[in-house]
Amino acid sequence: MFDAAIIGTGPAGVSAALTLKQLNKSFIWFGDENLSLKVKKAEKITNYPGLINITGNDLVDAFKKQINSMGIEITPKVVTGVYDLSTHYGILCNQDMYEAKAIILATGVEALKPIKGEVEYLGRGVSYCATCDGMLYKGKDIIVVITSKAHEHEIEFLSEICNSIKVFASYKDFGINKPNVELLSGFPQEIIKEDMMKLKTRTEEINAAGIFVLKDSVSPAVLVPGLEIENSHVVVDRACKTNLRGCFACGDVTGRPYQYTKAVGEGNIAAHSLVAYLQTIKE
Amino acid sequence: MFDAAIIGTGPAGVSAALTLKQLNKSFIWFGDENLSLKVKKAEKITNYPGLINITGNDLVDAFKKQINSMGIEITPKVVTGVYDLSTHYGILCNQDMYEAKAIILATGVEALKPIKGEVEYLGRGVSYCATCDGMLYKGKDIIVVITSKAHEHEIEFLSEICNSIKVFASYKDFGINKPNVELLSGFPQEIIKEDMMKLKTRTEEINAAGIFVLKDSVSPAVLVPGLEIENSHVVVDRACKTNLRGCFACGDVTGRPYQYTKAVGEGNIAAHSLVAYLQTIKE
Repeated sequence: MFDAAIIGTGPAGVSAALTLKQLNKSFIWFGDENLSLKVKKAEKITNYPGLINITGNDLVDAFKKQINSMGIEITPKVVTGVYDLSTHYGILCNQDMYEAKAIILATGVEALKPIKGEVEYLGRGVSYCATCDGMLYKGKDIIVVITSKAHEHEIEFLSEICNSIKVFASYKDFGINKPNVELLSGFPQEIIKEDMMKLKTRTEEINAAGIFVLKDSVSPAVLVPGLEIENSHVVVDRACKTNLRGCFACGDVTGRPYQYTKAVGEGNIAAHSLVAYLQTIKE
Repeated sequence: MFDAAIIGTGPAGVSAALTLKQLNKSFIWFGDENLSLKVKKAEKITNYPGLINITGNDLVDAFKKQINSMGIEITPKVVTGVYDLSTHYGILCNQDMYEAKAIILATGVEALKPIKGEVEYLGRGVSYCATCDGMLYKGKDIIVVITSKAHEHEIEFLSEICNSIKVFASYKDFGINKPNVELLSGFPQEIIKEDMMKLKTRTEEINAAGIFVLKDSVSPAVLVPGLEIENSHVVVDRACKTNLRGCFACGDVTGRPYQYTKAVGEGNIAAHSLVAYLQTIKE
């Protein structure tokens, strides 16, 4: 069992990982190996102390070099559920289960706002996992909402099982060209369930047997049952403790300001708080 | 009047200054132009995100370059008092008064622990300001407790007024060689007042007409009357707000972990909170 699991590879996750490593704790770190796409796209960062007018790209490169130099590895999986097993946590990545004594949530702000109805119908027509649930929709018509190219292989997989797939992609250059996969324009506004699942955009309403939402990180409220959320942010105290014992949160997921400097600061605090927590559960 | 005054030039102060500048606020920044001596002395910092195994010296150099590149200036004065003037704050540096709408305290951890009795007898036998109070001790025997070479000129000044000066210096290579100035060994433990002022070390008790304590930063409890302190740290919420309206604190002064990454994170938060506060007091 790991001492800790960190979920998210943005600046807060990076900071937490560096400090846990420095403090000699074992941990597994879930997220994108390319770190934060959002940081990478930042044109110029003028207020990150110690790095003058750095571009987002250079900041991400600096993070990568630093992680590599310390021998820290990223497990490039999407965490689909975190379960309090009373003595420790179970972390589910689709079918794979990992165990850790404590958790750091650094999932960023992108995951905060699910589509209206998404969470309500999760497991009842909405799925986050193509490989887990794809077979339920064999020969049927489905909708996929996809937020990053990294998940296109899941659409490939679904296209071999399902009759037709209508796709809403929130990024440019969608790369799948298959006869039964159709890219639609418009933004998903709401998911409802009548006799079939329905996805509403501003202008239309599309029926489907099921809706897959494929994204880099899942809303923390969905990810961690029982987690206290307020105004769509995870509630933490000054030590980055959540309402759940052994569960810490840092970075944009805890609220404004959405700033890299704030995020790394909280990553550091969360790691220290986690180490203090490990002391209290030592036999 | 300035929008803000920042007190302290460690990592938290640097971060607050960078962000206030970025947000186009006017501010005055008090502290050592050489920034933090404590950071400068750090051998190797392994968990500051984006800077791999940087030495304290290089981190301070990076901070200096960044500040210069943004045209940010430091006012190299010791703040001796901060006064809530109801619509704004008055900041006293010995005889000089400055005004700002709001305050960021980033005074670090060194100032946290005054000598026992120091605060109690401040203004009644204990002084922080040689030029202000020196004449009170004309022709008398005094004690000086000094924590940094930067204040030796104040001892020069006092040596011309007072009969004799006994000095406790908490650094090496004390540089004053005058017939009426004597460097003593031992650590000041307590200040008491009987018919004269007395300074106790572990082994002796020295009498004086007055005791000057010359240090880079004054304990926040003394600096800002009414400020809420707990376990010798300034109490703040997650937005780095203190109990006083328009007064924010960040970095080591707010508590553990005493980490550069945590300090810069809080500096960023304090600056954002201050800017939000300025909005609320706009006419």
